[in-house]
Amino acid sequence: MDWRWVEVNGLVTLATDFGESDWFVGVMKGVMLRFNPDIRLVDLSHRIAPHSIASAAYFLTQAYPYFPSGTVHLAVVDPGVGSGRRAAVVETAHHVLVGPDNGMLWPVTQAMGGGRWFSLENPEWLAGSASSTFHGRDVFAPAAARLASGESVESAGPEMADPVRFEWPRPQRKPEGWHGEVLYIDRFGNCLTNLSRALLDSEDPDFFAAPRRVEVQFGDHLIQGISPFYQAADPAMPMVVWGSGGALEIALYEGNAAAALGIHLGTSVRLRSRLVSE
Amino acid sequence: MDWRWVEVNGLVTLATDFGESDWFVGVMKGVMLRFNPDIRLVDLSHRIAPHSIASAAYFLTQAYPYFPSGTVHLAVVDPGVGSGRRAAVVETAHHVLVGPDNGMLWPVTQAMGGGRWFSLENPEWLAGSASSTFHGRDVFAPAAARLASGESVESAGPEMADPVRFEWPRPQRKPEGWHGEVLYIDRFGNCLTNLSRALLDSEDPDFFAAPRRVEVQFGDHLIQGISPFYQAADPAMPMVVWGSGGALEIALYEGNAAAALGIHLGTSVRLRSRLVSE
Amino acid sequence: MDWRWVEVNGLVTLATDFGESDWFVGVMKGVMLRFNPDIRLVDLSHRIAPHSIASAAYFLTQAYPYFPSGTVHLAVVDPGVGSGRRAAVVETAHHVLVGPDNGMLWPVTQAMGGGRWFSLENPEWLAGSASSTFHGRDVFAPAAARLASGESVESAGPEMADPVRFEWPRPQRKPEGWHGEVLYIDRFGNCLTNLSRALLDSEDPDFFAAPRRVEVQFGDHLIQGISPFYQAADPAMPMVVWGSGGALEIALYEGNAAAALGIHLGTSVRLRSRLVSE
Repeated sequence: MDWRWVEVNGLVTLATDFGESDWFVGVMKGVMLRFNPDIRLVDLSHRIAPHSIASAAYFLTQAYPYFPSGTVHLAVVDPGVGSGRRAAVVETAHHVLVGPDNGMLWPVTQAMGGGRWFSLENPEWLAGSASSTFHGRDVFAPAAARLASGESVESAGPEMADPVRFEWPRPQRKPEGWHGEVLYIDRFGNCLTNLSRALLDSEDPDFFAAPRRVEVQFGDHLIQGISPFYQAADPAMPMVVWGSGGALEIALYEGNAAAALGIHLGTSVRLRSRLVSE
Repeated sequence: MDWRWVEVNGLVTLATDFGESDWFVGVMKGVMLRFNPDIRLVDLSHRIAPHSIASAAYFLTQAYPYFPSGTVHLAVVDPGVGSGRRAAVVETAHHVLVGPDNGMLWPVTQAMGGGRWFSLENPEWLAGSASSTFHGRDVFAPAAARLASGESVESAGPEMADPVRFEWPRPQRKPEGWHGEVLYIDRFGNCLTNLSRALLDSEDPDFFAAPRRVEVQFGDHLIQGISPFYQAADPAMPMVVWGSGGALEIALYEGNAAAALGIHLGTSVRLRSRLVSE
Repeated sequence: MDWRWVEVNGLVTLATDFGESDWFVGVMKGVMLRFNPDIRLVDLSHRIAPHSIASAAYFLTQAYPYFPSGTVHLAVVDPGVGSGRRAAVVETAHHVLVGPDNGMLWPVTQAMGGGRWFSLENPEWLAGSASSTFHGRDVFAPAAARLASGESVESAGPEMADPVRFEWPRPQRKPEGWHGEVLYIDRFGNCLTNLSRALLDSEDPDFFAAPRRVEVQFGDHLIQGISPFYQAADPAMPMVVWGSGGALEIALYEGNAAAALGIHLGTSVRLRSRLVSE
């Protein structure tokens, strides 16, 4: 048996944009359970924004780190199915990831300390009838089942030197503060930015030092201060909070901030900190 | 080890208003499985009406009683997250409940014969990084995992003498019959009332005795008789049935009764029983 | 113990049109786990088109064959609940099916080689309180739990000689080609027809022989050729592909073909193959 970093625990998480009204998710579950009925399946979501590699990448960075060591993660948001894109298996320090090599697995792999990438192309791992339209069933689910059953990542195929990368723009330090942008809009309409508490604490530790006052600007809006939690503000007023993942977030307590304020992916958000005159 | 009423069975049910498009549910699952990979998770729903304590309370009363003794139930509909509301652990005769102390756990606890309430505040049970916006991850999921793994309810924190109560209005007996109201509208638009067969049988046993005829009135509508099942009536006509949970229900066989008839939570419903002249 | 074909594996799949916002699915899970906490539940979908026996039947034919031998499949799309329709248990060569006898189980049973049908009417198998409106809880879930725990199909009730059949129209061979129709529209708006690659290969093996050119006609549209995969065509142009289940499928790469092209269940689709003049 090959040397392996990760000892699998029999859990396989599923994250797709397949929706729940058709049989696509059920078929993947059947394929995995037929290979190994002892696999334990954990649905994360099947409602990732359709065909959105950026949304999928963000979703995975938020979810995977909470799972126990040895979990296999199966993720399929695959606008390029049937084209030349490769299929990937990634081994990080504690987890194994399976999905299309289209960038969606890149950020979470980096966030977990990097990993070894393999091109999933072992013909014995692929389902008998090659299908050009449903790799979830014919390529990814069989591989996840084998990996969760203890087969080695090296058996999936050759190591990949050049996986597709996906990177969000980094916030920029400007004289008057930080310039960032919106990376994800959740189903409540909350707008998550690339401005994170951890980044500011490490790169700009005096930014929040008293007696400074913080302002957030986007579009025509200027918000004073960062609320400690969602309920703190006037329900009808936009507010800015540190979200549960550490990102600066624009929210409306009783409404959809993105829809009400005209915010979309990529909307520019500026964070300023000014000395309060005494 | 503390004395306990309930011997847990390793099952944890999940009921939230988090929706399925974001990572919130997946993160809670990861937190629980990382604490104990043998926990068996059962999704009840993640589409409870957002921020509706009344809908959540109704949902739980309908679902929990069917689960086996020893099940831990994790429920999060939490409009007050980050405010001063407490977190609760409840031990009933057969189950353990975990969720915000905002009233949503009260009716099902009463329906299951009452329980002991504890304030979930043991600092060792809370996730390391205190978050003000995601108690599902940092407070409730860790507690559910510990409880489902056999830790005692007493370890969660001190007993609570004054949990937040939530009670629906009781139907009123009037000279001409019973006055009730709509408590829940399901996704088909069926309108469930607080008029239950069990209540009438115990408090008004002659109400349905022949040769009486029953009428149901709401808004401008007057319905004659109670149908034995949904398909019994003209598909386009509103009808009244005894629903599967025992509640009097207003329905349209091929339509959405709430939308078509202008019914909402709290709409008054009157039930009369008249002697048929012979 | 009775002689049985299938040795069950403890898995029960669930497929319904109950949606996820109410407690109906959770209650069925509770009923099964209370009977046997070791049952392993697998959600396929709870968003089958409401009350659509045709959609349910199609869904099951696509999903069930991928599951391991010994799986019990619980399916409830039941517009006739409370009427006289029977409840069915079917044993195929490898699986056990439980659901209403309304035709929805017929096509998948035939596709898996036929089966023995039983009328689910053993009073010991039904929940104590007979309900006229929720057979999922009172009839089907208890039966699925017993079957997945090893009770025999014969114990469910007497064998049924005349289960309700449901059959899609077969494609017709005409002088100029094949006439078929749309059987299912998935959530992306892709339109799946009864024209399958397997049918043409077996009944009309020269149909695709070079130097022939294939055309597909529906409504006012005429499509030249069959694309190898979804991404092959101009994103704004309708295309025809062999779908992952082997059916001829009408799709728009970046859109909803059914909505954009006015296609619905039953829309006629014609497939022609013409000699290319050289």
